[in-house]
Amino acid sequence: MTAAFRRATAADLPAIVALLADDGLGRGREDARLPLAPAYLDAFAAIEADPNQMVAVAEQDGIVAGTLQLTFIPGLSRLGAWRGQIEAVRVAAGARGTGLGQRMIAWAIEECRARGCALVQLTSDKARGDAHRFYARLGFRATHEGFKLTL
Amino acid sequence: MTAAFRRATAADLPAIVALLADDGLGRGREDARLPLAPAYLDAFAAIEADPNQMVAVAEQDGIVAGTLQLTFIPGLSRLGAWRGQIEAVRVAAGARGTGLGQRMIAWAIEECRARGCALVQLTSDKARGDAHRFYARLGFRATHEGFKLTL
Repeated sequence: MTAAFRRATAADLPAIVALLADDGLGRGREDARLPLAPAYLDAFAAIEADPNQMVAVAEQDGIVAGTLQLTFIPGLSRLGAWRGQIEAVRVAAGARGTGLGQRMIAWAIEECRARGCALVQLTSDKARGDAHRFYARLGFRATHEGFKLTL
Repeated sequence: MTAAFRRATAADLPAIVALLADDGLGRGREDARLPLAPAYLDAFAAIEADPNQMVAVAEQDGIVAGTLQLTFIPGLSRLGAWRGQIEAVRVAAGARGTGLGQRMIAWAIEECRARGCALVQLTSDKARGDAHRFYARLGFRATHEGFKLTL
């Protein structure tokens, strides 16, 4: 099945939030009820206003079947290297196991390469063992500990 | 000893790059020779151009004794939460063990709070066991695997 990968628009927001919520860890922390909570619209506006941010979707047969966020981070370290960072990766339940996730991450890596990034990075909750094997198969190496502090 | 924490200026760049290079892992991937490689100046210009990026320094007695980079990331997940991300943390060899690193991270966390972030995140190379204990003492939890892919 062919999928198109593209920058999300505001019209995609309900589908994206539904994907974020349809997830073992996301279930308790998202609210996919319509109309969407204003905080989601504010966040999307902030993402759109920043040229180094992009929310992307994978569209199959007119349906949003996957999403991720890309952040392009300029930095001094590694001789002034740009990093591409992937967050909030989700694939619709009905599209799991079809290779869509792999194609979506491959697309995201190419977006990072096109922006001149020397490195692509992401963190994945330690509870997501399947995701870790998935990223390892795609060539990522789990070289770092990922620390979070809730404010 | 009192330290001032502030946004870096271009005049701080040689000292910042020297800190990045004076590190077990950084030694092989940075070049602190003067004049600095143009890639560092380009990276600093890109950081300055992005209101969601900041390189900061800790100054003690007129000397740059520490540095870190902050990235403020708007996102849809967690009800449209902003994240603060800390990268490229370094403390000068002569200032280690003085509490400067702890005060610098506490300052960075307050900057994230002032920007409305719900979460502060960072990754640390698995080879840096001392750093992991340091972040755990500051309240960070190592909940995630940190994956990297070199392009």
